[in-house]
Amino acid sequence: MDPRTGMPRVGMVGGGQLARMTQQAAIGLGQTLRVLAVSADDSAALVTPELEIGIHTDLVALRSFAQGCEVVTFDHEHVPTEHIRTLASEGHAMYPGADALEHAQDKGVMRRKLRAMGLPVPPFSVIPADANSELTHKATEEFAAAHGWPVVLKTCRGGYDGRGVWILKDSAHAAAVLTHLGSAGDLLVETLVPLDRELAAVVARSPFGQAAAWPVVETVQQQGICVEVIAPAQNLDDARAVAAQELALSIAASLGVVGVLAVELFEVAPSAQFPGGLVINELAMRPHNSGHWSIDGAITSQFEQHLRAVLDYPLGKTDAVFPVMVMGNVIGGSLDSPGAGMGMDERIHHLAARFPAVKVHLYGKSFRPGRKLGHVNVGGSDLAVTRRTAQLAALWLSDGVWGDGYAIHGPADDASDSPQHQRGTDRGAR
Amino acid sequence: MDPRTGMPRVGMVGGGQLARMTQQAAIGLGQTLRVLAVSADDSAALVTPELEIGIHTDLVALRSFAQGCEVVTFDHEHVPTEHIRTLASEGHAMYPGADALEHAQDKGVMRRKLRAMGLPVPPFSVIPADANSELTHKATEEFAAAHGWPVVLKTCRGGYDGRGVWILKDSAHAAAVLTHLGSAGDLLVETLVPLDRELAAVVARSPFGQAAAWPVVETVQQQGICVEVIAPAQNLDDARAVAAQELALSIAASLGVVGVLAVELFEVAPSAQFPGGLVINELAMRPHNSGHWSIDGAITSQFEQHLRAVLDYPLGKTDAVFPVMVMGNVIGGSLDSPGAGMGMDERIHHLAARFPAVKVHLYGKSFRPGRKLGHVNVGGSDLAVTRRTAQLAALWLSDGVWGDGYAIHGPADDASDSPQHQRGTDRGAR
Ligand SMILES: Nc1ncnc2c1ncn2[C@@H]1O[C@H](COP(=O)(O)OP(=O)(O)O)[C@@H](O)[C@H]1O
Ligand SMILES: Nc1ncnc2c1ncn2[C@@H]1O[C@H](COP(=O)(O)OP(=O)(O)O)[C@@H](O)[C@H]1O
Ligand SMILES: [Mg+2]
Ligand SMILES: [Mg+2]
Repeated sequence: MDPRTGMPRVGMVGGGQLARMTQQAAIGLGQTLRVLAVSADDSAALVTPELEIGIHTDLVALRSFAQGCEVVTFDHEHVPTEHIRTLASEGHAMYPGADALEHAQDKGVMRRKLRAMGLPVPPFSVIPADANSELTHKATEEFAAAHGWPVVLKTCRGGYDGRGVWILKDSAHAAAVLTHLGSAGDLLVETLVPLDRELAAVVARSPFGQAAAWPVVETVQQQGICVEVIAPAQNLDDARAVAAQELALSIAASLGVVGVLAVELFEVAPSAQFPGGLVINELAMRPHNSGHWSIDGAITSQFEQHLRAVLDYPLGKTDAVFPVMVMGNVIGGSLDSPGAGMGMDERIHHLAARFPAVKVHLYGKSFRPGRKLGHVNVGGSDLAVTRRTAQLAALWLSDGVWGDGYAIHGPADDASDSPQHQRGTDRGAR
Repeated sequence: MDPRTGMPRVGMVGGGQLARMTQQAAIGLGQTLRVLAVSADDSAALVTPELEIGIHTDLVALRSFAQGCEVVTFDHEHVPTEHIRTLASEGHAMYPGADALEHAQDKGVMRRKLRAMGLPVPPFSVIPADANSELTHKATEEFAAAHGWPVVLKTCRGGYDGRGVWILKDSAHAAAVLTHLGSAGDLLVETLVPLDRELAAVVARSPFGQAAAWPVVETVQQQGICVEVIAPAQNLDDARAVAAQELALSIAASLGVVGVLAVELFEVAPSAQFPGGLVINELAMRPHNSGHWSIDGAITSQFEQHLRAVLDYPLGKTDAVFPVMVMGNVIGGSLDSPGAGMGMDERIHHLAARFPAVKVHLYGKSFRPGRKLGHVNVGGSDLAVTRRTAQLAALWLSDGVWGDGYAIHGPADDASDSPQHQRGTDRGAR
């Protein structure tokens, strides 16, 4: 306990945006998030005074960090499970535990476990890493011979945002990718699922075993990276939505997850193979991009809920506050964009002038093309308007261009954007 | 600008809960609030790495703090205006400026200005401080002779939460209070307004002159201290609500306020003296207790809006998100309360179990009877249920007792409290 406040000290390993947003939630609960970051410039390192600098693979650094915390949790999946086990055996509360976390670290371990649980996963095969790449080629060919091309190849560990995922069209393509890959550790090969769209079921679970599910959302990816989330997923069959929540809750319970669990799903046409129309893609055991909408759109955000869960507090209500909310990721745009020279401060300024209801969340990161710099949340009642606003706002912050040619110094382009709430202003909106 | 992020550095003088909650909003905007606090244990000092320790009356400390900021603003009203003027003349952006802030620092200056503007204020008289307390007694008697007993006596400066306000019944009472007062600086004497209830109109204004108003709220005080806010004020005549907003916006414009301005109002039966049914009580030029509901209840919170305003960003939308939201202050209860021995961590635990939708905001302060330790926000559609929940929650966190005799280990007392969202939990709610 922090002697100054009498409140528990939660430590998060990793200084990324998830830790940053968890610190916002911690402040509300009367706490200060402790962060173990690699650098003092990390996203979360910039916003908490309770900072330790250290590498998440260094047991000594982890131990010294854990000693100052009542509970330790994670901003990412890269802490070695053996270190988590060691610290747990030394009496530190580490959530989620190593047995659960493995399933978010290793896609092969995850696929095997879910298949054993009888849950819907694509046909797959794990190809153990081998210096002799002949074996790897052969195993891929055999899988394709049994299931047909194309197949999906993934590194079991370390992939994210589509890095570590390849859709292999045919033998020649497979050979080219595998040769280029070198030794990437164990590989997963699976069928290409003919998906209609992607969904995510996000839940949280406490050590006590209480669990709570947010509404199921739709996630939209481009080149393997999530660009948009629609909460709740529109036109989703009620029974299927409940089934998705039940899937996630049963995984959380079976694996003994503590904290937030995001289950990425594919929605498919129901078939003999997938009668429920749902296929599980992957698991994340921490606040997840598909839950960022909850900061502005749910009674309890995933960041507050993660804190409640790891502290074994009773969980908060997960109801949505708006009929629909759209989250758009802000991803550093091209340096060739006409707006590339404009700083983020200026971009926010123009965004706020045009869309006074858009909620901006920036991660304090310097600009780099392709880097996740922040996100926007837009709540509303009309899907098309809300989605369009989120897309325009996210593109503007990403690239410094208005996707619809809006002129910066012109008037708002429709009545819904106008600052009608600004009653009696002595000057109009800029 | 912060070279690491390219974002502006806003500095807030004072390390109280207002700065603490402003830091939460700053994080979302990609910033880190810089705080000048008296002690490293101050509420906001606990949650920002950009901390300077110094006294707000020390020009040297203020200057060194201002040098690291693009804009300086205030968590309280205690910074001497001469220091603000000095730093402004040296080129620092200080918001609100000294000319405006005086009206929030000195109730006499405020009353005179508003009367000169033709705005509705109670009849009053300012009694200049004088070592010869005979003069003070005499002036009070004269005011009472003209307007009748009781009269309200206030210190012009330094009062808050009802400290520095006395309702004087008669000559004998006046004599007793004045004698006891000693030299308290200038005094304000005014009529006791026969108020029906108290309202607050909270607005924000930017240097550019853009302004935005939140819905008018009702504030409930006990012994001069705000205990509850209902947003929006219920059964408030539409025209009167607009008039209250217009009053606040015109004050903001006339005084050149930058940032949040809260105008405390009395609602009275319309009369020849107060035809609009509104009387202005006092002004605050910073985020204010009457706006705390906006964190969970408005599109843009007062803390984000204050940052936007002082940075001259376009302001955010101020619409309410729930039909009604009730804010309850958590004020350290009696040490004789049966729950006095229970720490805040345990209190939150039980609160969360009973009311999963209550939003808790704790200020990281150690317990002391009468100290503002935090607040709760409860959104809903039914006023009675929402208000009752907020009152029970605030009382529980304040005193460690349930006002309705709820047994901690028993079931929730009505269906609306049950954790119905916890679908498929492996164990029930504790
Ligand atoms: N078996 C599959 N069938 C079809 N699409 C897939 C398959 N596996 C992955 N994808 C696509 O690739 C994206 C990234 O794959 P995923 O395994 O989630 O990797 P990452 O860890 O990078 O998120 C998915 O969101 C989906 O769009
Ligand atoms: N003239 C008045 N008539 C009636 N009640 C008053 C008057 N002035 C103050 N009060 C009561 O006292 C409370 C505190 O007074 P205020 O001037 O706002 O002091 P503080 O600075 O402590 O908030 C008000 O909220 C109101 O309830
Ligand atoms: Mg994925
Ligand atoms: Mg007052």
